[in-house]
Amino acid sequence: MGRSAFALVLVLALAVCVAPVERKCLLSGSWRSDTGCRMVVYTLDKDSRFSGFYLPGPAAGDSQLLTSPLEGSQQDTGLVPQPIFFFTVNWRLRDSEAARTTVFLGQCYVDTKGEETLHALWLLREAADSPAEDWKATRIGTSIFTRIK
Amino acid sequence: MGRSAFALVLVLALAVCVAPVERKCLLSGSWRSDTGCRMVVYTLDKDSRFSGFYLPGPAAGDSQLLTSPLEGSQQDTGLVPQPIFFFTVNWRLRDSEAARTTVFLGQCYVDTKGEETLHALWLLREAADSPAEDWKATRIGTSIFTRIK
Amino acid sequence: MGRSAFALVLVLALAVCVAPVERKCLLSGSWRSDTGCRMVVYTLDKDSRFSGFYLPGPAAGDSQLLTSPLEGSQQDTGLVPQPIFFFTVNWRLRDSEAARTTVFLGQCYVDTKGEETLHALWLLREAADSPAEDWKATRIGTSIFTRIK
Amino acid sequence: MGRSAFALVLVLALAVCVAPVERKCLLSGSWRSDTGCRMVVYTLDKDSRFSGFYLPGPAAGDSQLLTSPLEGSQQDTGLVPQPIFFFTVNWRLRDSEAARTTVFLGQCYVDTKGEETLHALWLLREAADSPAEDWKATRIGTSIFTRIK
Repeated sequence: MGRSAFALVLVLALAVCVAPVERKCLLSGSWRSDTGCRMVVYTLDKDSRFSGFYLPGPAAGDSQLLTSPLEGSQQDTGLVPQPIFFFTVNWRLRDSEAARTTVFLGQCYVDTKGEETLHALWLLREAADSPAEDWKATRIGTSIFTRIK
Repeated sequence: MGRSAFALVLVLALAVCVAPVERKCLLSGSWRSDTGCRMVVYTLDKDSRFSGFYLPGPAAGDSQLLTSPLEGSQQDTGLVPQPIFFFTVNWRLRDSEAARTTVFLGQCYVDTKGEETLHALWLLREAADSPAEDWKATRIGTSIFTRIK
Repeated sequence: MGRSAFALVLVLALAVCVAPVERKCLLSGSWRSDTGCRMVVYTLDKDSRFSGFYLPGPAAGDSQLLTSPLEGSQQDTGLVPQPIFFFTVNWRLRDSEAARTTVFLGQCYVDTKGEETLHALWLLREAADSPAEDWKATRIGTSIFTRIK
Repeated sequence: MGRSAFALVLVLALAVCVAPVERKCLLSGSWRSDTGCRMVVYTLDKDSRFSGFYLPGPAAGDSQLLTSPLEGSQQDTGLVPQPIFFFTVNWRLRDSEAARTTVFLGQCYVDTKGEETLHALWLLREAADSPAEDWKATRIGTSIFTRIK
């Protein structure tokens, strides 16, 4: 009897040890991009939408950019552990009323240790005057974000 | 007296005729893309946000795509006559739970006759299994939309 | 004898009439883009490579761009009737030594009447000073070219 | 006399030590991408053109891709220390004649220690059957390459 009780405890202990890391990704929190930008995402609402703000880093190479609001949503982590997300940043510019908007579209990957990484492509559009000028309105690039702990 | 009344009427009539077309663009309404897709955008809310749905056309070349919900926002036309907009489509697929999301980022141009055209670039992402597979997750293209009258 | 000769002529005439349009696409020739640019592609060499020049149109919205040399290649039309092609333009700028390069990657489609259309995506890169500034170096867009006859 | 000779040697030695690292970038050599691909670029010809081959890594996530030839060119390093480059890869596929082409457009950055890094955006196109199917033909992404030493 003592032996089987010990065996049970052992089994439970092992179960705890080898329990898989919960591989879920919520975007809420603080993130740093590979180009030195930072962003803060507030708690998601019940529809997995979120808001927050984006801070261009020294790497932004454009001192005109100010901390700017972001909004987006992610897939429900109840359905998928590594959700697709998107968010948009409406840039606030110093000394300028010009419109500049970035949309990020990406996926949150979770590794075996539970570490999350966001891989995203983005499009950045500046206002143009006419369809003839539209060809030069859009820049493209990628960003990889990791959590600030 | 009769003459000056007539002159007044004439002036008013001319004023109506030569009144500049109001060059404002609201995304609300029905649109057709250059690749045969259609979309319906409901009335914008007070923050210039909107929802609607997107219908892949015969040109979609993918019978799996179903009519899917869209959400987005545009710049306030009180501030700019040719607003930047974005919207996202969360694709509903026949026989599949796979995630597929498109974000459109574009600008609405209004010509001298008041005709609106939407020029947009889009990114389409499919879920990948890991960062190593992320490289092939994203397609890109452009769409031009005109109003269905 | 007269009858069979007539029949032969008739058959030949019909053969000519109903001969399928040769659905092959060679990029050699003059093309106009949907944004008003023009390009001239010289005769392809035996490896399906070509050179030529690119003229920014009024739509380029940048009076600094001069007629610039292009180089590229296409798939062998002996292997595929609707070849993939690419070409690169090294922009010559008025009053500037700054580097600006565009690569076009596209496919030549041939319709049932034998009309060719080039659908391409392009990336335009300007030189940046450092990796930190690289994020803003690249623009993206699409071009559709039809033959100038 | 001995002293001035010594001083001269010292000056020369210092000159060698503090000589600025030659910040020039030639693409010739072996490179590894951030997604585990490798490429070998042969010696550039007098016009700064090059050929070589590209090996998809384990990260390619597509066992169909074989080692494939690449061709491209870079700006003359006599004119610019951090040249823009492009190259194209015509993919060889196992069990397939389908055409798949990637173009890379990037810039070679050299840091203060003389270390070179290649930052590139790429477009990958697969053949489509018609303009109506063209919308899904093109994928996009970025690659960062460092030298294999």
